[in-house]
Amino acid sequence: MAKCAKQKASPKGATKGKQYVFFFGGGKAEGDGTMKPILGGKGAGLSEMTSIGLPVPPGFVITTEVCKHFYENGKKYPDGLKEQVDAKLAQLEKVAGKKFGDPKDPLLVSVRSGAAVSMPGMMETILNLGLNDASVEGIAERSGNRRFALDAYRRLIMMYGSTAMGMERELYDHAFAHIKKTMTAPRLGLKEGDKIEDTMVNEQELEALIGEYKKIYKQGTGQDFPQCPMEQLWGSVNAVFGSWMAPKAVTYRSVEKITGLLGTAVNCQQMVFGNVGEKSGTGVAFTRDPSNGANIFYGDYLYNAQGEDVVAGIRDPIHLDELKKTDAKIYAQLCGVRKTLEKYYHDMQDIEFTVQDGKLFMLQTRRGKRTPQAAFKIAADMVKEKLITKEDAVARITEKDIQGLFYPIIDPKISPMELKRKRVAGGVDAVPGAASGQIAFSAPDAEAEAKKGKKVILVRHETSPEDVGGMYVAQGILTATGGKTSHAAVVARGWGKTCVCGCSKLNIDYKTKTMIVGEKTYKEGDWITLNGTTGEVFDGQMSLVAPEPPPEFKLILSWADKIRRLKIRTNADTPLDARKARELGAEGIGLCRTEHMFFKDFEIPEDSEKRQLAIQEMILSETQEDRKKALQKLLPFQRRDFVGIFKAMNGLPVTIRLIDPPLHEFVPKSPAEVEKLSKATGITPETIDARSDQLHEANPMLGHRGCRLAVTYPEILEMQVRAIIEAAIICAKAKVKVMPEIMIPVVMDPKEYKLLDEQTRAVAAEVMKEQKTKVDYMVGTMIELPRAALLADKIAENAEFFSFGTNDLTQTTCGLSRDDAGSFLPAYTDEKGAAILKADPFEVLDQDGVGQLVKMGLERGRAGRAATAKAAGMPDKKAWLKVGICGEHGGEPKSVGFCHRIGMDYVSCSPLRVPIARLAAAQAVVAEGAAKTAPAKKAAPSKKAAKKK
Amino acid sequence: MAKCAKQKASPKGATKGKQYVFFFGGGKAEGDGTMKPILGGKGAGLSEMTSIGLPVPPGFVITTEVCKHFYENGKKYPDGLKEQVDAKLAQLEKVAGKKFGDPKDPLLVSVRSGAAVSMPGMMETILNLGLNDASVEGIAERSGNRRFALDAYRRLIMMYGSTAMGMERELYDHAFAHIKKTMTAPRLGLKEGDKIEDTMVNEQELEALIGEYKKIYKQGTGQDFPQCPMEQLWGSVNAVFGSWMAPKAVTYRSVEKITGLLGTAVNCQQMVFGNVGEKSGTGVAFTRDPSNGANIFYGDYLYNAQGEDVVAGIRDPIHLDELKKTDAKIYAQLCGVRKTLEKYYHDMQDIEFTVQDGKLFMLQTRRGKRTPQAAFKIAADMVKEKLITKEDAVARITEKDIQGLFYPIIDPKISPMELKRKRVAGGVDAVPGAASGQIAFSAPDAEAEAKKGKKVILVRHETSPEDVGGMYVAQGILTATGGKTSHAAVVARGWGKTCVCGCSKLNIDYKTKTMIVGEKTYKEGDWITLNGTTGEVFDGQMSLVAPEPPPEFKLILSWADKIRRLKIRTNADTPLDARKARELGAEGIGLCRTEHMFFKDFEIPEDSEKRQLAIQEMILSETQEDRKKALQKLLPFQRRDFVGIFKAMNGLPVTIRLIDPPLHEFVPKSPAEVEKLSKATGITPETIDARSDQLHEANPMLGHRGCRLAVTYPEILEMQVRAIIEAAIICAKAKVKVMPEIMIPVVMDPKEYKLLDEQTRAVAAEVMKEQKTKVDYMVGTMIELPRAALLADKIAENAEFFSFGTNDLTQTTCGLSRDDAGSFLPAYTDEKGAAILKADPFEVLDQDGVGQLVKMGLERGRAGRAATAKAAGMPDKKAWLKVGICGEHGGEPKSVGFCHRIGMDYVSCSPLRVPIARLAAAQAVVAEGAAKTAPAKKAAPSKKAAKKK
Repeated sequence: MAKCAKQKASPKGATKGKQYVFFFGGGKAEGDGTMKPILGGKGAGLSEMTSIGLPVPPGFVITTEVCKHFYENGKKYPDGLKEQVDAKLAQLEKVAGKKFGDPKDPLLVSVRSGAAVSMPGMMETILNLGLNDASVEGIAERSGNRRFALDAYRRLIMMYGSTAMGMERELYDHAFAHIKKTMTAPRLGLKEGDKIEDTMVNEQELEALIGEYKKIYKQGTGQDFPQCPMEQLWGSVNAVFGSWMAPKAVTYRSVEKITGLLGTAVNCQQMVFGNVGEKSGTGVAFTRDPSNGANIFYGDYLYNAQGEDVVAGIRDPIHLDELKKTDAKIYAQLCGVRKTLEKYYHDMQDIEFTVQDGKLFMLQTRRGKRTPQAAFKIAADMVKEKLITKEDAVARITEKDIQGLFYPIIDPKISPMELKRKRVAGGVDAVPGAASGQIAFSAPDAEAEAKKGKKVILVRHETSPEDVGGMYVAQGILTATGGKTSHAAVVARGWGKTCVCGCSKLNIDYKTKTMIVGEKTYKEGDWITLNGTTGEVFDGQMSLVAPEPPPEFKLILSWADKIRRLKIRTNADTPLDARKARELGAEGIGLCRTEHMFFKDFEIPEDSEKRQLAIQEMILSETQEDRKKALQKLLPFQRRDFVGIFKAMNGLPVTIRLIDPPLHEFVPKSPAEVEKLSKATGITPETIDARSDQLHEANPMLGHRGCRLAVTYPEILEMQVRAIIEAAIICAKAKVKVMPEIMIPVVMDPKEYKLLDEQTRAVAAEVMKEQKTKVDYMVGTMIELPRAALLADKIAENAEFFSFGTNDLTQTTCGLSRDDAGSFLPAYTDEKGAAILKADPFEVLDQDGVGQLVKMGLERGRAGRAATAKAAGMPDKKAWLKVGICGEHGGEPKSVGFCHRIGMDYVSCSPLRVPIARLAAAQAVVAEGAAKTAPAKKAAPSKKAAKKK
Repeated sequence: MAKCAKQKASPKGATKGKQYVFFFGGGKAEGDGTMKPILGGKGAGLSEMTSIGLPVPPGFVITTEVCKHFYENGKKYPDGLKEQVDAKLAQLEKVAGKKFGDPKDPLLVSVRSGAAVSMPGMMETILNLGLNDASVEGIAERSGNRRFALDAYRRLIMMYGSTAMGMERELYDHAFAHIKKTMTAPRLGLKEGDKIEDTMVNEQELEALIGEYKKIYKQGTGQDFPQCPMEQLWGSVNAVFGSWMAPKAVTYRSVEKITGLLGTAVNCQQMVFGNVGEKSGTGVAFTRDPSNGANIFYGDYLYNAQGEDVVAGIRDPIHLDELKKTDAKIYAQLCGVRKTLEKYYHDMQDIEFTVQDGKLFMLQTRRGKRTPQAAFKIAADMVKEKLITKEDAVARITEKDIQGLFYPIIDPKISPMELKRKRVAGGVDAVPGAASGQIAFSAPDAEAEAKKGKKVILVRHETSPEDVGGMYVAQGILTATGGKTSHAAVVARGWGKTCVCGCSKLNIDYKTKTMIVGEKTYKEGDWITLNGTTGEVFDGQMSLVAPEPPPEFKLILSWADKIRRLKIRTNADTPLDARKARELGAEGIGLCRTEHMFFKDFEIPEDSEKRQLAIQEMILSETQEDRKKALQKLLPFQRRDFVGIFKAMNGLPVTIRLIDPPLHEFVPKSPAEVEKLSKATGITPETIDARSDQLHEANPMLGHRGCRLAVTYPEILEMQVRAIIEAAIICAKAKVKVMPEIMIPVVMDPKEYKLLDEQTRAVAAEVMKEQKTKVDYMVGTMIELPRAALLADKIAENAEFFSFGTNDLTQTTCGLSRDDAGSFLPAYTDEKGAAILKADPFEVLDQDGVGQLVKMGLERGRAGRAATAKAAGMPDKKAWLKVGICGEHGGEPKSVGFCHRIGMDYVSCSPLRVPIARLAAAQAVVAEGAAKTAPAKKAAPSKKAAKKK
């Protein structure tokens, strides 16, 4: 290789210690696909393509570990790196048969960034490194195409200046335009406005341009353009590593929640040229149609061009079908590559290639991005083609693929520009989908407008159980506070209703029924559109499109069902939801919240007010007698609700949670509501207000709620259990198979649980005696406080099942209020910040912390119950503690995987997430299998590393 | 024994199975002192006195296990009980040489209740059982004293009717008064108003009275007074067991927090009579003076009387000193008993005895209650007398003994009646002691009035850090809400300032500065008196008395210091508190809260307002720059505070916690404060209000607080660390030995801790570089969230110490807000309720639940740090994770014991609790020793039981 004055020679034999540079070329590669974390996606792909015999220009990869070292050591490289690069460069020269910096026949190389995850925003490419004033003439001579050589040189100066040295690219573009305008146009006699293609610029003009570029470079950097190829190379390498922490790259990772990467790798590869004549060209292709998954070869090709020209859209490319006609040989060769790659990767690939003088070179292969529809079709087709197994098919469908099939989206025909123009605010993408409607600022308003047939968006500062009626009729929900597990988000998710939360820019004034966002004021009845998938709010009405699941959806989920061991239940509070979830594959209800029934009659809307008044009367009661009277009014409503749900779930278990929220959530808040209640009950507004004040709590999450209500007001539990058992008996008499599981929430102590368990069974026994009918039922508890998890063995002595309420368990274990965490949690999950937490623990179960308690609770619970059962001589069925999860995490794939691994019986999630959970449960099984066979595979690179020592 | 028609004869040889009845008499006893749980205190004492040769009338004890069985089996007795009683009764007849029910020379017995803990409120005594119409004449004949026999019989009817059958005692008293008035008085020619002693009533009159009593009995019970002695006996036994669950007994146990008892025992014992002439009598005595502990024989004696007469105060008794003169023989015999008992029990005893015809009988011995002063003196004296060891002395001093020495009390001369009359409300006994003062309804008002030299009681709905200035100058604090760990209680306890919390009867109106309690209205400036020891509020001013610790206090605590292994630190925020705590034996500060300094300048009161404005300005800052500017103003104040504290603790470690509460606690609340701040900062009131609203949190306990503030606003941490290190350097230069330990609160994650640890060390290094002075310091964290305990191993990789914040850890582990738990927690700790929890977990550390996390946190933390230190080759000192506790539990004896057992290095508590903690730490060591030697001792009764099988 060439040595310049600026470069020190490497001491001989210095390539010791850790391998930081991996070579590929000549049909062999030091790296492979399993080394993606350290080679990056591009480097791993190039290595692998080389190994499997595809035509890849030779080169080497500097690993992501170097990037990590670079940032952890004040931007210094590890010892020995330079020597390793020198050695690999020498190897490259040998394979290429050219010398880097050779003025006669120089080796030219490209330098490209490449992390393990594709990441726009990072510095990407510098081409033609190795050219200088001398070697450009060598290339000219050897290629017999001086224009091409000059063009390559001017590209290098521009790319190096703009990309490596951080100058404005526009400076170079201006100079090019100026040359075209002042030299090329007059020479060709073009008029102003005529397009001047780059190819029209001739040698003389390119020479002039190179001169201009050099001047610009010197002005921008204070130095001459480096003539030393090694300086060019290291300058480019430095730039790639430097770009890893550039603001736009950091922002991209933060937005896309990409964490855990070591850094970027640097790929240095011999140049091939698609722009050396009409027998040359460059192309990009997908091995199948990424929009619908059809098994066709899909791509574009541009004659006589470099890759960057395709991206820049300088000329219109042709479809691959045309290439078949114009260059059948290359096309056939590409078809072979396509087949080889799919056979090797067992997946649809996104490839880049260049043809130089009729010779094909592969420059990149990676997994092809695809639409949800395509994802299902490709996976199903590949099983048919025996390219992959059913397990593989199940494993590669993602959460987003499923989500994309169920939620309406804003019409894709609406241009991004228009969307940008109409965007008024951004918030938390709480529930995906899209919704358009007219603003209502209160639940009653929303209900009134919806009754008139209007489409409504309910806009609230935050929502409470009192608002569920309005939420239910709304198209979508928008709140100013709260995150993905706020009340609004949780309830809306249960209904698959679009929701944008925590939109702090909203300034809502309930009194005037207006909302100010930035400079715009919205009043009641104004149209807005929500995109819950992105968390955006748009001005006005937009047309929405409902996607249609492809036929392969059911097929692949049926495979998942056969693979998985976890049962999938749903969180549903109404017969409608229960039916919907059942259609989507739910095998029971894991959480039926009873408190929403206090506010909303989901079947007979006229009864909603009666329910509200009865619950409020109950709360305001001063004596137990009054309270019982009010509860008596609620009983028939609850019973009717349960009958509806039992019928919908005929034959499947239904877990009903007794009342959970603190009572003050039910008391009327507005003066109008207070007055209404006063009229209905005869209690003075002052007394109502006073009672409300009395019920106020400093930290309601840790207050008088859940089973604590049952401890202090046993009559509430009595009414609810009575309603459940009476409903079960009604159903049983109607030949509906009922399997109620009564769940006691917020338990913190074994004695507390035992007391309420006994009360529950006593009421059930009484009702069955009255009705002279027996029904099977279970009694169990939610584990949602750390103390309950710690004492799970003792609680399970009496409880027949556990359901982990991981929302609350996360709140208490981490000391985080999900209503308030929005003000500081972003600083914890943001990579720009400290990246303290891997993810928002309310979205993805915190396996490190909360997960310990879940595991402990499950293990202790199972052991405690088994020991008690053994001592009492119970049958095996009774001795098994059934364990599930009903927090929001029950529909999140990583969390479902955790639930599988620790041995839960089921997960429960909102109806629309049931397919995601079915899939995730199966994926967990597949991953288990993969883990078993993995060691041999994974050991490969380390074996190699071992040999080198 | 006598058989009546109503009693079935017992089948012979039926005394099988478990022993339920234990005999004592004739110098031997089947039970002993270790069996107190099943024999009760009285039964154990009688058995033991019998064994050691004291003259005890023979009898037997029916165990507390029978009581337990009785309640667990629908008020049925265990099989074999009747037979066992019959057998023991036969044994008693043999020893006594008399037969039960013998009409000529009947055995008479008493029946007394007796649980393991003395418990007024339970049925206590029925005497003279065995008397009936026939045997009363037998007794008359044998004793030669018919009047005595008749008197004994009328007493039996009255006691049996009122005590066993639950009739009103007054019915009998009226009849007696009527006889006295209509028969005795005319006979003796007494005038109305002359006192008629019982002894004046003659035989005829007693006969008439017995007739009346029988009529009353029949009217009340519908049955004749039982003539069958066995029926009398079982009626009495039933009554004793029945009284265990009588409302007043249940209430007593609930109030006194007596739990874990099996029930009451029943003592059946041969009667002895102190009322058979002038050579007879009855007495009660203490083996030392219970008021001051002096080693003198202290007691009263009543000639010719039964024990109940002493209690009833029918005649004035004589002091024991007089008995010495009047009956030297009995006195000498009693002195022998006194010596024997103290030697046997190694403690001061409270005894009851009767002299029958010049013969001494011991009826009871139990540990004598004593004043705190006496407790110290007796313990110290007994060590001198070699009756007990120093360890014993330390072990027997209680928390209450120490408390009684330090807090002022309401003048004991004020009569209970007057106290009752003046009592206006009751609340939570948050901080003991008493205080009188004039009401102030706001902190500024309190400060203004105090400045004028007035004594102030601060009355608030609840307090917040903003109120500390007013709290500091107040004599005492009264709040309407909150419990023993509310802000008011915690802060007041730190200062040893009387506090009554959660006084829900208060109706405070801040606007009109009035408070309505029941029907009475108090306005600002009105006098009230608080008794924090009982939680009572009294009308008007009362004189208070300050107790003085006896000289033995220091002595016994010096022994405790030598025994204990735990270090004792204090929670102190001011130099004054620090000095006070040091005087009381504190060996460092375990928690110095920095946030109170933001509101109050404890040394230069004029600076308080400047501090407040600066902190509020900081919070309202919109940019980091503004925030830094405001923090710059706070820096000198904080530095000065720390200098003061370091000087006070010269040579001892000081743990300083960085800012902990959520910022909204600091924003001004009243319009006047908002205006003041607006004027000072130029920020509009609207903006201030808006920012306050923005900071509002749904669950502030789980919100943006603790180190989360440091994560989002690193400049706050920077200012505080700078103030600490600058202060340390100032002190070091003045030859004050400083040992600052910087504590980061509310940590939930190892990465979070590491980030802040690094920031802290960076600031410290910077300051030391600036000042060219090095000081030693440590950085560590509070473990107050379950997640921190679970991940303690990783946190300890960087943290040098842990301090368990068990207040918050209890809140999150149990899901209990200490501000709100008052509305339902009583239902959990009340024995009347479910008795779910052993104690309020905010008072006594919940070892079952929270304790698991504390132990886990400590063990994992120590292991994690040791492993890291080993890997890093740290010195041993650095490898040891120092662990303490700084929650309220640090001054609670049971919790201190737990901290000792799991191996903490220190506990930290409020200054006045330091002596309690010193003692408790020593007691934990003593208990450990006792546990080691205990097995042999404890095995004794079971050995006996084994023999019987």
